[in-house]
Amino acid sequence: MSPNSRGVEILSIGTELLLGNITNTNAQWISEQLSQLGLNHFRQTTVGDNCDRIIKVIQEISKRSNLLITTGGLGPTPDDLTTKAIAKSFNASLFERPHLWEEIKRKLSNSNLQDDSSSLRKQCFFPKNAQIINNPRGTAPGMIWEPITGFTILTFPGVPSEMKTMWEETAYDLVKNKFSDSYSFFSNTLKFAGIGESSVAEKINDLLNLKNPTVAPYANLGEVKLRITARAKNDLEAKKIIKPVKEKLKKDFSKFIFGEDNDTLQSVLIKELTKRNETIVFAESCTGGLLSSSLTSISGSSQVFRGSIVSYTNELKNSLLNISEDKLAKYGAVSEEVCEAMAINVKDQLVGDWAIAISGIAGPSGGSQDKPVGLVYISIAGPNNHITNIKKLFNSTRNRIEIQTLSVNVCLNSLRLILLSNSK
Amino acid sequence: MSPNSRGVEILSIGTELLLGNITNTNAQWISEQLSQLGLNHFRQTTVGDNCDRIIKVIQEISKRSNLLITTGGLGPTPDDLTTKAIAKSFNASLFERPHLWEEIKRKLSNSNLQDDSSSLRKQCFFPKNAQIINNPRGTAPGMIWEPITGFTILTFPGVPSEMKTMWEETAYDLVKNKFSDSYSFFSNTLKFAGIGESSVAEKINDLLNLKNPTVAPYANLGEVKLRITARAKNDLEAKKIIKPVKEKLKKDFSKFIFGEDNDTLQSVLIKELTKRNETIVFAESCTGGLLSSSLTSISGSSQVFRGSIVSYTNELKNSLLNISEDKLAKYGAVSEEVCEAMAINVKDQLVGDWAIAISGIAGPSGGSQDKPVGLVYISIAGPNNHITNIKKLFNSTRNRIEIQTLSVNVCLNSLRLILLSNSK
Repeated sequence: MSPNSRGVEILSIGTELLLGNITNTNAQWISEQLSQLGLNHFRQTTVGDNCDRIIKVIQEISKRSNLLITTGGLGPTPDDLTTKAIAKSFNASLFERPHLWEEIKRKLSNSNLQDDSSSLRKQCFFPKNAQIINNPRGTAPGMIWEPITGFTILTFPGVPSEMKTMWEETAYDLVKNKFSDSYSFFSNTLKFAGIGESSVAEKINDLLNLKNPTVAPYANLGEVKLRITARAKNDLEAKKIIKPVKEKLKKDFSKFIFGEDNDTLQSVLIKELTKRNETIVFAESCTGGLLSSSLTSISGSSQVFRGSIVSYTNELKNSLLNISEDKLAKYGAVSEEVCEAMAINVKDQLVGDWAIAISGIAGPSGGSQDKPVGLVYISIAGPNNHITNIKKLFNSTRNRIEIQTLSVNVCLNSLRLILLSNSK
Repeated sequence: MSPNSRGVEILSIGTELLLGNITNTNAQWISEQLSQLGLNHFRQTTVGDNCDRIIKVIQEISKRSNLLITTGGLGPTPDDLTTKAIAKSFNASLFERPHLWEEIKRKLSNSNLQDDSSSLRKQCFFPKNAQIINNPRGTAPGMIWEPITGFTILTFPGVPSEMKTMWEETAYDLVKNKFSDSYSFFSNTLKFAGIGESSVAEKINDLLNLKNPTVAPYANLGEVKLRITARAKNDLEAKKIIKPVKEKLKKDFSKFIFGEDNDTLQSVLIKELTKRNETIVFAESCTGGLLSSSLTSISGSSQVFRGSIVSYTNELKNSLLNISEDKLAKYGAVSEEVCEAMAINVKDQLVGDWAIAISGIAGPSGGSQDKPVGLVYISIAGPNNHITNIKKLFNSTRNRIEIQTLSVNVCLNSLRLILLSNSK
């Protein structure tokens, strides 16, 4: 039987987690480590700083798992109860490790620390046969202890930087050697634009039942991802397992896939424009600068982005972008005619190879029956004065920030598709 | 016996949580809500998309709690198993609610949706006597169901924006009325700008030990908050408990406090400029549109914001903002001289009462010994051509996005302070 057949669990200890004062980033970080090691990991629990409740949970976990990783409750304050509760769970006693007390005094640069400073000294007490996990970034050490055969506990402080260093320097090797078989998980994520989660999911129904690699969909505002995960002995073997599935997906979805792993629509566009040695400029109305800032948040954007005009009033659309008052009066600022003129004029004035203009109604107010909240016009002007006009009507459940964000996504993805069909 | 004596638990369902792909921000948000309602909340659990394991956990929780709140697993894909697993936990069957199917078709603006689109249709099945929680922001509804006397389950999707809206619009009142005793927690948060967390914490050491109200500090990038929480029977009583502490803090920190609760620097500025009937325009370089978009993300910004010029190249600083080539060559784009000229010229050209210009080096490349990454100039031009120049050098550990975000914060807070000392 594999040493990890019953799996690893994570127990996060701290009343501040139950009060919602902090987000449990530790559990995520450890989960990621366990995935990479290919360990079975079926459950996570969070409890407060209460000795009886900690004991109850630990006893439950000891009956169903091989390995328990705890975070929190190792410090000097009275509500730090983890080590004591773990010992009590198995009717064990705690004994002082005198060298740890010397170490704490050294760490605090205070060799005269009163030996009866019981709150700090508490951190030196451990069950008899526990192995210590050094804490290079704080005073509270952790431990590795096997209270009953086939069940091991590892304890870490709740401070993320301390926990991570202790994991990397001491725990990782132990967990890998003792609990991991020689297999690990490797992932490769494909990223989609211009297609909804349910449309993707419906077309890959057969892939969702695969065992190795597995395929899992994730969705966020305007973004769909498929993660392909292989269980393999090494990177090379994983790539071989992932390859046929990835190739099938690339063939089936072709242009809907814009990139992989850390790619974003922005980074893909910047890369493509840099390769073509072309520049881009924007004229923004309803997105109010979000299109520009989504591009300039990325290092390297100055290679391709020259600038933009954010014209939030009709007056500035006239004075900065030369949209005639007649045109504004006749069609309104939110219209294909005005948006197209914005794109052509900003391209000219800011001297870009490409220009995107956007005008719409982000709400919550400002809508009318003819032009409701969620109506957005996008125009893309390219070399040779080629113009693409797009009209979007976002769902009425969308709020202002969603309409702005989705509009930016449509801008970026539309330009990506134009560049694809217009390769140099 | 109180209806919440055995407490509330949160169950987060999703393999992506166990794999460490995403952080569980839902559990934190719900915990915060439960704290405010003064509910007992002793445990949180996370499990993957596995029917048997979900059933096992739910049965355990039903034996020790009064209320279970689940997130995740309500969507259309095959790994969305929550409702089915909950029903199975209590040997109940699922029945379709036909009106929900009509609603989904309406939401997707697709009345011709095939009636055999079983993946979407799955979201319409619920136990017989479950009450539906409408999902105004997505297709998957949740439910409120009491499968056995004294134990109620509330289900929510995993998408945070959907979950929060459903909680606020439907679940909050139910939970408050059915599970909360006559005492609740009421919070009032004071928000700080221009001062660090440790400086705030040092000055309020005595307040941190109070029992009712409690005072807790929170810090985020460039933002410090103090939350004052009172346990009281009603809002009025809570305000009385909070008042003396709040007054002391307002006196001690005066101008460092820019607002309360949902106020942001942006919303406070928009409110103040609206009151003064004054407008604002921006000239952005290193923030690349972030200053503009941070303002325009807020409804009501069109009352005061006219527009901005994002000039990412020297050429556009010259052609759009009339910065002479001589000046750019002599001082460089990142200089007090150029930044001040940008502010004066953009105010003039875009006809604002106030103008903010910003020029700096956001990195990671582009820095030099004289002008390192993190160096940022800000100029604010006001009525009567009054100019304020600010020079900032952000810590070298700051990355590009942090430098951009902190720069925007300095812009907004500096203008706030100028408006305060220059009240109309």
